[in-house]
Amino acid sequence: MRHIISIGDFDRDGINRLLDHAGQIDRKKYDAQALDGKILAVLFFEPSTRTRLSFESAIARLGGTSLTVGSVEACSIAKGETLADTIRVVSGYADAIVIRHPKEGAARLASEFSTVPVINAGDGAGQHPSQTLLDLYTIRQSMPIDGINIALIGDLRYGRTAHSLASALSLYNARLHTLCPRGLELPETLSARLEEQGMEIIAHENITDIIPEVDALYVTRVQRERFPDSASYFNVASSYRITPELLADAKKHLIVLHPLPRVDEIDPRVDEMPHAKYFEQSRNGVPVRMAMLMQVMQ
Amino acid sequence: MRHIISIGDFDRDGINRLLDHAGQIDRKKYDAQALDGKILAVLFFEPSTRTRLSFESAIARLGGTSLTVGSVEACSIAKGETLADTIRVVSGYADAIVIRHPKEGAARLASEFSTVPVINAGDGAGQHPSQTLLDLYTIRQSMPIDGINIALIGDLRYGRTAHSLASALSLYNARLHTLCPRGLELPETLSARLEEQGMEIIAHENITDIIPEVDALYVTRVQRERFPDSASYFNVASSYRITPELLADAKKHLIVLHPLPRVDEIDPRVDEMPHAKYFEQSRNGVPVRMAMLMQVMQ
Amino acid sequence: MRHIISIGDFDRDGINRLLDHAGQIDRKKYDAQALDGKILAVLFFEPSTRTRLSFESAIARLGGTSLTVGSVEACSIAKGETLADTIRVVSGYADAIVIRHPKEGAARLASEFSTVPVINAGDGAGQHPSQTLLDLYTIRQSMPIDGINIALIGDLRYGRTAHSLASALSLYNARLHTLCPRGLELPETLSARLEEQGMEIIAHENITDIIPEVDALYVTRVQRERFPDSASYFNVASSYRITPELLADAKKHLIVLHPLPRVDEIDPRVDEMPHAKYFEQSRNGVPVRMAMLMQVMQ
Repeated sequence: MRHIISIGDFDRDGINRLLDHAGQIDRKKYDAQALDGKILAVLFFEPSTRTRLSFESAIARLGGTSLTVGSVEACSIAKGETLADTIRVVSGYADAIVIRHPKEGAARLASEFSTVPVINAGDGAGQHPSQTLLDLYTIRQSMPIDGINIALIGDLRYGRTAHSLASALSLYNARLHTLCPRGLELPETLSARLEEQGMEIIAHENITDIIPEVDALYVTRVQRERFPDSASYFNVASSYRITPELLADAKKHLIVLHPLPRVDEIDPRVDEMPHAKYFEQSRNGVPVRMAMLMQVMQ
Repeated sequence: MRHIISIGDFDRDGINRLLDHAGQIDRKKYDAQALDGKILAVLFFEPSTRTRLSFESAIARLGGTSLTVGSVEACSIAKGETLADTIRVVSGYADAIVIRHPKEGAARLASEFSTVPVINAGDGAGQHPSQTLLDLYTIRQSMPIDGINIALIGDLRYGRTAHSLASALSLYNARLHTLCPRGLELPETLSARLEEQGMEIIAHENITDIIPEVDALYVTRVQRERFPDSASYFNVASSYRITPELLADAKKHLIVLHPLPRVDEIDPRVDEMPHAKYFEQSRNGVPVRMAMLMQVMQ
Repeated sequence: MRHIISIGDFDRDGINRLLDHAGQIDRKKYDAQALDGKILAVLFFEPSTRTRLSFESAIARLGGTSLTVGSVEACSIAKGETLADTIRVVSGYADAIVIRHPKEGAARLASEFSTVPVINAGDGAGQHPSQTLLDLYTIRQSMPIDGINIALIGDLRYGRTAHSLASALSLYNARLHTLCPRGLELPETLSARLEEQGMEIIAHENITDIIPEVDALYVTRVQRERFPDSASYFNVASSYRITPELLADAKKHLIVLHPLPRVDEIDPRVDEMPHAKYFEQSRNGVPVRMAMLMQVMQ
């Protein structure tokens, strides 16, 4: 594989191999000069500082050099020329391109014009494969992914990370529990496709029903702008808030994940509990992205 | 030479030596550790992402480290202190300075206060020597520069790249064909100087007259703001647009150059024709700038 | 010491050891691979280009890689999550964090949540230890710090660098001369503490009284916004302006320091005099910060 555009480009074996490789890297078994002398353009057409830093850290850990184009610059490029032209030009400066773009399909388009490998770092409502791979990696650190009971909580309509994760989990016989504000349900086309692939999806109305049942909580942020007013936002947000009290009923091995940043979705007191894996999840972005970089660059 | 400020600082031999060196670099004959441990400040007082990336790529290819100051930051520095002070401070942090500035003469001024070599990456209506050198390099990849028939098309009044290229070509017995909207002709002082140096300049009114005659087209962007209204802009822009149909009459070896970004000046269908050299021209910026860096740093 | 948050965390021996180390580095006696493979996050929640470049230069000189978060990005992070969360996330990407923040106490807070060493690059009205250390280093290049007569001139109320330097000098039996516009005196709590520590503080009204008496002038900028109108600003600013004429009465070994940028406080003609040490002071930021980095990273 020369490009990594979508988690859908991977089969289960492909994912497992990449996660195995990330695991080796995590145990410091990697060549810190693997990308020595290589230049990687990090082209962010919208800001996403965490993702950018995680990729740049991965590049540096492998001895490569980042050529960063932040969102302000990238947007000014975008006004002057087509994405195709920008990619052709940047291809001439770098040995690979990591692209973030607000428009779905932009990464695929970039891969068609690039003369060097392209990694999708998130394109609009589209794909964000590195996030999904690090989510899976974090689950696998605690338990086998196969047959997992996982709850997706929050904005399931617009939450790209939840979509990609659900798709990938359909390869692992997972059971999906969902909890979300009315109107922010999983898109029907997605849930239909998942069920067709044999995934069981159980919609819940109440957080307390979910907690004792599942192995993992995947909490995402509900944006205030999705609600007509602050009151209804706070009403919903507080009814989902993960607290130590709520987790009293959880299985001992339950893990709490969150793609970050979290705002009010998780009580800071949860941070100290063994269930809390979201900061580790964030840290896991580095070895997972190192494995992705090695895959496209070799 | 310790600084590179203007293409006018080079004689024909100096240009040829630099292009020869860039050619060697292009064939991978260079020391990838040449700038190991060296720090190069890339100080851009106005945004120019392509030029910045090209220089930073060149620096990384030689093993050096870029210390980037983007335009927002640079402008905030500029408010607080004189350029002389900024340059003296940055000289203390870096082993060389690559400067881009909106004011003509800024690079020369910088070189007077710097304790380290300065490379001009474009200063206002002034000079942009690295662009001219990569233009010449691209021509030379296809044919000898000497005695070339070249057409400059577009905004010849404000187009700095066209001015610098024309000046350099006067060292190579080139014949200059020009085509531009009324009011955007070559500045008279420039054309007078070129003719004094023995250059033949032929002004054309019609693109179809030019195509069969020349060895190279150097197309530049005409900015919409130069026209009273959109209609007159589109009228002019479309009359100059380079298309496959137009190129049917071209010499087989004709090359089409453009400093990029292109907007409507060149039909994307031209991209696939052997005449199209503008993306290669952009790529050539890296070896040419590597040769420039080596020259000032040795 | 794992973090460097405040100059107050150092005793006199600690400062001297660090300055000795910086001196060695200045004489090129250091391992240019000391931070090879290390990633240092440079997290600037407010712009300070000079400080950023100086740290990034220091990191590069030691072979490390900077992961830069400029102020625009940092502020957008700050809106989405707590500083504690940001620091925990960035800790997962880097081997150390250099932080600049507009709020006093932010660096200390960061050090409490970071899993990697933190260096304070200035936090609001709080501390700026690297500036103080380079100020001390520059003094020591010209004379022993012990027993020095030094004048602080300018905005002594809000001038953080003057506060930190005064505190540090209280460890060296320095005599402090002050000259400032009415209303911009040293904060009383600070001057009370300094006097309690045995420091003699002599307030002056006239620049000409100070010049012949002191070994060092530490000039800081008075911001125009502190004054009701431009006229009173210029009146004050001009009465403090350091000129060659004024320095005619100075001791031969007098040094003039300024944290830069300078605006009108020092006549450019002073630049050529042997008294002028402010550009050297700026350059000294690199070896001093290299010594700080080595201290936290070893």
